[in-house]
Amino acid sequence: MAEAVDLQEQEVPYQETRLYRIRHSLAHIMAQAVRDIYPKVKFAIGPPVENGFYYDFDLGVDDDGNPMRFSDDDLEQIEKRMQEIIKGKFDFELREVTPDEARELFKDQPYKLELIERFLTPDEFGMYLDPNGNEIDHPPQLTTYRQDSFEDLCRGPHVANTKEIKTNAFKLLSVAGAYWRGDENNPQLQRIYGTGWEDKKQLKDYLTQLEEARKRDHRKLGKELDIFTFDEEVGPGLPLWLPNGAIMIEELEGLAKEMEENAGYHRVRTPHLSKEDLFLRSGHLPYYEESMYPPMELEGVRYFVKPMNCPMHHKIFGSRPRSYRELPIRLAEYGTCYRYEKSGELFGLMRVRSLQMNDAHIYCSIEQFEQEFINVVNMYLAYFRILDIEKYVMRLSTHHPRGLGKKYINNPELWQQTEDLVRNVMRDNDVHFVEVADEAAFYGPKIDVQVYSAIGREFTLATNQVDFAQPGRFDLTFVNSEGEEETPLCIHRAPLSTHERLIGFLIEHYAGKFPVWLSPVQAVVIPITDEHYDYCRQITADLRAAGIRAEFDDSSDRMNKKIRNAQKRYIPYMLVVGDREMEEGAVALRMRSGDDKGALPLAEFIAMAQEVIREKRYE
Amino acid sequence: MAEAVDLQEQEVPYQETRLYRIRHSLAHIMAQAVRDIYPKVKFAIGPPVENGFYYDFDLGVDDDGNPMRFSDDDLEQIEKRMQEIIKGKFDFELREVTPDEARELFKDQPYKLELIERFLTPDEFGMYLDPNGNEIDHPPQLTTYRQDSFEDLCRGPHVANTKEIKTNAFKLLSVAGAYWRGDENNPQLQRIYGTGWEDKKQLKDYLTQLEEARKRDHRKLGKELDIFTFDEEVGPGLPLWLPNGAIMIEELEGLAKEMEENAGYHRVRTPHLSKEDLFLRSGHLPYYEESMYPPMELEGVRYFVKPMNCPMHHKIFGSRPRSYRELPIRLAEYGTCYRYEKSGELFGLMRVRSLQMNDAHIYCSIEQFEQEFINVVNMYLAYFRILDIEKYVMRLSTHHPRGLGKKYINNPELWQQTEDLVRNVMRDNDVHFVEVADEAAFYGPKIDVQVYSAIGREFTLATNQVDFAQPGRFDLTFVNSEGEEETPLCIHRAPLSTHERLIGFLIEHYAGKFPVWLSPVQAVVIPITDEHYDYCRQITADLRAAGIRAEFDDSSDRMNKKIRNAQKRYIPYMLVVGDREMEEGAVALRMRSGDDKGALPLAEFIAMAQEVIREKRYE
Repeated sequence: MAEAVDLQEQEVPYQETRLYRIRHSLAHIMAQAVRDIYPKVKFAIGPPVENGFYYDFDLGVDDDGNPMRFSDDDLEQIEKRMQEIIKGKFDFELREVTPDEARELFKDQPYKLELIERFLTPDEFGMYLDPNGNEIDHPPQLTTYRQDSFEDLCRGPHVANTKEIKTNAFKLLSVAGAYWRGDENNPQLQRIYGTGWEDKKQLKDYLTQLEEARKRDHRKLGKELDIFTFDEEVGPGLPLWLPNGAIMIEELEGLAKEMEENAGYHRVRTPHLSKEDLFLRSGHLPYYEESMYPPMELEGVRYFVKPMNCPMHHKIFGSRPRSYRELPIRLAEYGTCYRYEKSGELFGLMRVRSLQMNDAHIYCSIEQFEQEFINVVNMYLAYFRILDIEKYVMRLSTHHPRGLGKKYINNPELWQQTEDLVRNVMRDNDVHFVEVADEAAFYGPKIDVQVYSAIGREFTLATNQVDFAQPGRFDLTFVNSEGEEETPLCIHRAPLSTHERLIGFLIEHYAGKFPVWLSPVQAVVIPITDEHYDYCRQITADLRAAGIRAEFDDSSDRMNKKIRNAQKRYIPYMLVVGDREMEEGAVALRMRSGDDKGALPLAEFIAMAQEVIREKRYE
Repeated sequence: MAEAVDLQEQEVPYQETRLYRIRHSLAHIMAQAVRDIYPKVKFAIGPPVENGFYYDFDLGVDDDGNPMRFSDDDLEQIEKRMQEIIKGKFDFELREVTPDEARELFKDQPYKLELIERFLTPDEFGMYLDPNGNEIDHPPQLTTYRQDSFEDLCRGPHVANTKEIKTNAFKLLSVAGAYWRGDENNPQLQRIYGTGWEDKKQLKDYLTQLEEARKRDHRKLGKELDIFTFDEEVGPGLPLWLPNGAIMIEELEGLAKEMEENAGYHRVRTPHLSKEDLFLRSGHLPYYEESMYPPMELEGVRYFVKPMNCPMHHKIFGSRPRSYRELPIRLAEYGTCYRYEKSGELFGLMRVRSLQMNDAHIYCSIEQFEQEFINVVNMYLAYFRILDIEKYVMRLSTHHPRGLGKKYINNPELWQQTEDLVRNVMRDNDVHFVEVADEAAFYGPKIDVQVYSAIGREFTLATNQVDFAQPGRFDLTFVNSEGEEETPLCIHRAPLSTHERLIGFLIEHYAGKFPVWLSPVQAVVIPITDEHYDYCRQITADLRAAGIRAEFDDSSDRMNKKIRNAQKRYIPYMLVVGDREMEEGAVALRMRSGDDKGALPLAEFIAMAQEVIREKRYE
């Protein structure tokens, strides 16, 4: 049973935790260590981050004018020096400095000087930024922290003394390039990432989890398991699904179709591009244009590839008069949308430019809204059970008044009303949720569902949005029981997210060991010797006829190699066949875990596998 | 069993038939009749066409400067006058005229004068066109034909005397606008279409067929049966599939997936757009650019929506090294492509801009080619059996040397080779076909399959193309059994055409009365009185659980109205339920034809319907 995480209880601000102070102090200690090894280094900034800390350094350029880089050996040496500093039991000393003292202190540090001037320069409204990024009406008090011989411009907080840090509870992880202030026109800096914890065990657990996440990386497994590929000539963010990926997609679509059919949805199919008129009417132009592909101009008309399916579904609702007797009308489509994401922000299947979405739009009267909304939430939960998702958080994203008329439809009253409506439905039905301001869709509030993978990584998957704006913009109406025209509400929902994001998540969640129903190959038949080939071929045909995706390994490899190959591909069932199995019409069943189930009649295996597949059990 | 039409035997040139002479003569007689009614009319041209004839007239402009048009009353009056002319028993007299005589004769007929000058003016190579459009090296001899008082510039042939035409064997059908020489910058003319036959019976049969075709028009039925819709704001040529259409699509895809899975195809999924690099490599740019949507420019890179799926599949083939052991590799995708057709040329579902194609690409060695090619042809025939298609023609389209380097890849030797290959495979396997020059794909020869609907209308559906060019352009190779790199051949095939064209065809072929498996609603449950509602609801649920798409008509209409409504929607099975049926757990089965099958136990009906659906029998 999936369990809602109660984020309210977790919310102790990170900055107030001991871990934050340890990591912040480790960043300073690392900076000192780097300075001790590279005395000419220039320092940029070095904050704590989730699970650790980093610091950005400028090592200058080499004889060819290229920026100097840290090597792996450097990291080891820096770590060693950090341990020495920690062992020195130095206090972290806070000091208030005047602007001139600061300028003098950091006179050889151009990045620090730039930071100082930024703190001391008012913006166009006469306001200043304090080091936390908050607006204040006076120049902030500059402070430094010092340990041993190293003094850094900093507002803290830090541990009181380096002895509070355990020398075996931190580790430097990697070096990456980073631009000063994130701007690629600025000099490139060297960023060292480290992780820091309260004790050795925490560090070890974290490193294990990191290693596990690396093994589960969907980009790595997606390639190894032949699920998807990218191609330079097709373009970034546009995955091509290989046969194994296409099977997973078909299975997920089959699941969605079954669930939606049972819930009274109708499927439709709509084009991937449209005249701009459609998106002007919907409001995607201008509210959403920066996330859209640029136009194509044909016969003097601008066409856009669709960033969302909703305007097309609205057109289908509006294609003929509707009566209250037909409502709710639920239109579903696994529609592919195209969105512009900067190429630098693309990431595997998680940030892409083509998205095939588990989309549907529910048109209902205001009286029907609560039931429809809760049905959608319950559909989420049903999917979570099937996909072994045990933890999730629902986030209600609301508008912010400052975005009205810019990123949000300018109708403050309707925003208020719909947000209340959703809030009340969620509360009345005991659905846990957290609220986040200023993240709504342009046409109404939305519920995003964040799920946690088996190793605790967080993914935003599903979305459920209330639309009070588009039905009116599309002149959608139905004749109510009083014979009057009424505008329906519209719920946008996508419980299974997009194929791209869901499959990316499932790869990491299951580490490539998918439940049988999702596995591209469900069973592999392995002969012990050449004499068993004919029987193996027959079995494979029988399995396929029974709806089981089976392969016969007729390669020239020996049996043990065949078993290892199947295990590497995480094929759930290996059916090994020798003399005895052949005589008895049986198979010897081995699981991908290595578990040996012994021989059983073929018919029995087929019945078992069919049941596991039909019921979507793990294996 | 589908039957190949042997076009070779039918090929008596139309121009040499008696029907052609009758129709040509009717065109002149119509022109005379129009002149007798509108003495100031200007004549353009008036040829025989398939099933009839037309003539283009310029009636001048009205007081507001708008072109004058014929009314329906005019057609009747013209027909009457034609009958009088025919009864006059006039000879058609041929006369050779000099250029000056012709200019004098047609001095008040500007279109005829333009034609005369066109015949008499040599082209840049010093060649002339004769009235048949053939190049000759001298100005053609001008001729006229005259009946009664009407003389027309014409090369014939005609009947000898109007008495050869039966006054009850022709009919004027319609008036349409047409531009002089088909150019919209020229004046608009009024075209009158007529049909003409040897006798009254032939005319009657043709008019009946025409009426039947009108009833079956997929645009009319598509709307009445809620299958698809177009929307002005989405754009021309971009159909939106309504729930009933989406069900048909899902059924057709299910059929294709089953057939393809059994034939060893693998499914893939690819994006709808790509960087231009892909289409430069494939050769779509420049060979096919005029049929493509214009580019979108993103981050300085040009992207195109795909006009075909092939380049994407080539990329998947090339995404890793391939061995001869894997071949043939058959990649299938119901991919949606976008092509630019001029808005004036769009026509319902038959000429559209978005095409979801039953696409696949088969990569094989030259030795495997024959078997793969014949398998594809046999797959066509299997589909024809399922879809009750009884007549078809295969057309082998070859290149033409004059298009080399323009519309065809410039490799004359490979064209010759591949065309021979296909020709021989077809002959060796006794597949009937006709050859058409200059209609190949740019990358190789193709087989188009024309099928005939139940009422004999011809549709070009399937396509099967041999590609000797793209595998090389994409550097596709496999390691052959000698360990050497070899380039595969590629077969492009689409037996079920596109959803758009196939469903358009099926609507007309079945006149909307689809086989049960394709019917959006397969059964409707109709209660005799309110007391049967609960039982009807239960039955409907049972039918759905048994995989039958069933509806319960719980409207306030009376039973007979409900039956009529279901018949109008061509729902195959109507299950009427009264007291007796309720008591016995039965249903009274009525077919959409009106045929009353009487009562039978529900379980028996379910088993029967399931079998009809599973075996894809008509009903």
